Amino acid sequence: MIYRKIYVLTLLSFFLFSCKNKSEETTIVNPKDNSAVTVDPLPSWNDGTLKSDIIAYVEKITKKGSPDFIPEEHRIATFDNDGTLWAEKPYVQELFAFYRVKKMVEAKPELAQKQPFKAVVEKDKSFFEKGGDKALIELVAATHTGTTEDEFETSVNDFFKDAKYPGKNIPVKQIRYQPQLELLNYLRSNGFKTFIVTGGTIEVVRAISEDFYGIPKEQVVGTSFKYKYDDEKNAVQREAALNHYNDKEGKPVGIQLHIGQRPVFACGNEGGAGDIAMLKYSQGNKYPSFQLLVNHNDSIREYSYQEKDNASLNAAAKNKWHVIDMKKDWKKVFSDN
Amino acid sequence: MIYRKIYVLTLLSFFLFSCKNKSEETTIVNPKDNSAVTVDPLPSWNDGTLKSDIIAYVEKITKKGSPDFIPEEHRIATFDNDGTLWAEKPYVQELFAFYRVKKMVEAKPELAQKQPFKAVVEKDKSFFEKGGDKALIELVAATHTGTTEDEFETSVNDFFKDAKYPGKNIPVKQIRYQPQLELLNYLRSNGFKTFIVTGGTIEVVRAISEDFYGIPKEQVVGTSFKYKYDDEKNAVQREAALNHYNDKEGKPVGIQLHIGQRPVFACGNEGGAGDIAMLKYSQGNKYPSFQLLVNHNDSIREYSYQEKDNASLNAAAKNKWHVIDMKKDWKKVFSDN
Repeated sequence: MIYRKIYVLTLLSFFLFSCKNKSEETTIVNPKDNSAVTVDPLPSWNDGTLKSDIIAYVEKITKKGSPDFIPEEHRIATFDNDGTLWAEKPYVQELFAFYRVKKMVEAKPELAQKQPFKAVVEKDKSFFEKGGDKALIELVAATHTGTTEDEFETSVNDFFKDAKYPGKNIPVKQIRYQPQLELLNYLRSNGFKTFIVTGGTIEVVRAISEDFYGIPKEQVVGTSFKYKYDDEKNAVQREAALNHYNDKEGKPVGIQLHIGQRPVFACGNEGGAGDIAMLKYSQGNKYPSFQLLVNHNDSIREYSYQEKDNASLNAAAKNKWHVIDMKKDWKKVFSDN
Repeated sequence: MIYRKIYVLTLLSFFLFSCKNKSEETTIVNPKDNSAVTVDPLPSWNDGTLKSDIIAYVEKITKKGSPDFIPEEHRIATFDNDGTLWAEKPYVQELFAFYRVKKMVEAKPELAQKQPFKAVVEKDKSFFEKGGDKALIELVAATHTGTTEDEFETSVNDFFKDAKYPGKNIPVKQIRYQPQLELLNYLRSNGFKTFIVTGGTIEVVRAISEDFYGIPKEQVVGTSFKYKYDDEKNAVQREAALNHYNDKEGKPVGIQLHIGQRPVFACGNEGGAGDIAMLKYSQGNKYPSFQLLVNHNDSIREYSYQEKDNASLNAAAKNKWHVIDMKKDWKKVFSDN
């Protein structure tokens, strides 16, 4: 009797030790009467077609012996970050760039006379409105390069310690979408490996990916600058040239380089047409796949913004991708902590 | 009683389901009398200083509360492939390139008149001896690009199905080093994430990484060609230009891009001085780290070859890296299956 107890405890502690990063299962067994207890894996999603479609897909592809079964090593799920896992009005990347400008100008005041620093210091929005993506990339290059990786990482960590989200005055961590955190956990508890595939720079997202999303650094694919190994410093140096721009058609390229196979589950958002190529690429998988697109139509709880040409929603309709109607499908939007 | 049995079985099956890729532990508990049974995690390593140093390191950094403890997310181990995990006389990559030449010439016979195809068809070794690394890269570029990723993957899989290793006439799988397979398992069972960081092209190694080494595709870092997303084909196309050459100083760069942090455990080999930068980079980790270098000094069971300037062994001596004396430290060299 006592041996059996020890055996159970040994198994249990071994299980807890080996799998402490695993999430809860949807069906758990009550040890008292061996009955199955079903737990809603997506409590912040309203019941409806979309929620049932997600669950039906996961159940179908994890059912051994089913023709739709996908072996675990091919259960790859990719999520965009800005506008998909957290809010993007404004981009956190932009907040970080402004923070870097502040720090760089404090250290070297003459920078305040030089673009793009000048525009930030003088709060000249028109510089970035006129300049578009190009001006933003210029700002990011000026503030994100010229250091070693170690120095850059320290600077990103310092930023996230106190960063507040404009307009909402809450810590950046609280602009994560609660329903998406549940979806990530649900997928992982069903053997999926979850990746972030972001247009943002890879190190900025890596600094918070484990803490914010339970996603390890090496499962983040993003925009990167050129690196060079400096033998004397024994460090990787960031150079002021773009290596890979991981948006739009860049996403399948980043996925191939970092992951080496097409995702079976891909999730992006409308707003900047950044995820169409990734969702389409995922649909080319030889296994049954699932595409999901966040529609930002909730001006009260989040933001409401649409692409002028509706490219993402049109692609979704044409290719039968699933669309998250934020207003209707999400019981709550942001995470509490 | 019966409930307790069901409970045990439920826990056990849940554990097996959740952790089926985990390796055996070094200390297991005998359920009959709760005694600890110690199993040698490295049976193909001869007892001696090196084996005890490896085990002492792993025990020290996994001991909670110890000043040397490393959190799991930072237990990153990187292994070179050619000459470190399997034999490199010749490179498997070269065999694959020859196989591709054969297939390409079969499809288009006029290629046999063109270099580097001509040299392969005519078995003109001097072309590659004279041309060195440059000629090899030229051959690899000519045989590894111009297809989609999907087509290339099929071709790699076809090659590995029947590939035999020259001189030994055994399947390529059997040129893996048995002691290293045990080391990979041992590290993983202690919470390490294991990566391959190879000078070889990333997709060739990814084709066998899971089956040969238990390492998933996304944990392979290697040399890559430029990719382009082809919207019409909905596929990633390989272009005839190098994207990243993952050898020597390229290794820390590849590690930063794919993994995002310095390894704490790094293993390479002498022979081409390809791993010095990776081992040095790993030693710059803020956590206690371990560097390991295979010395190919076993002309009877494997091959014996040394660098002319002894650069790798000199670096090992200078930086106190651990050297595997193949003749002395390995009880057996190759895997049986």
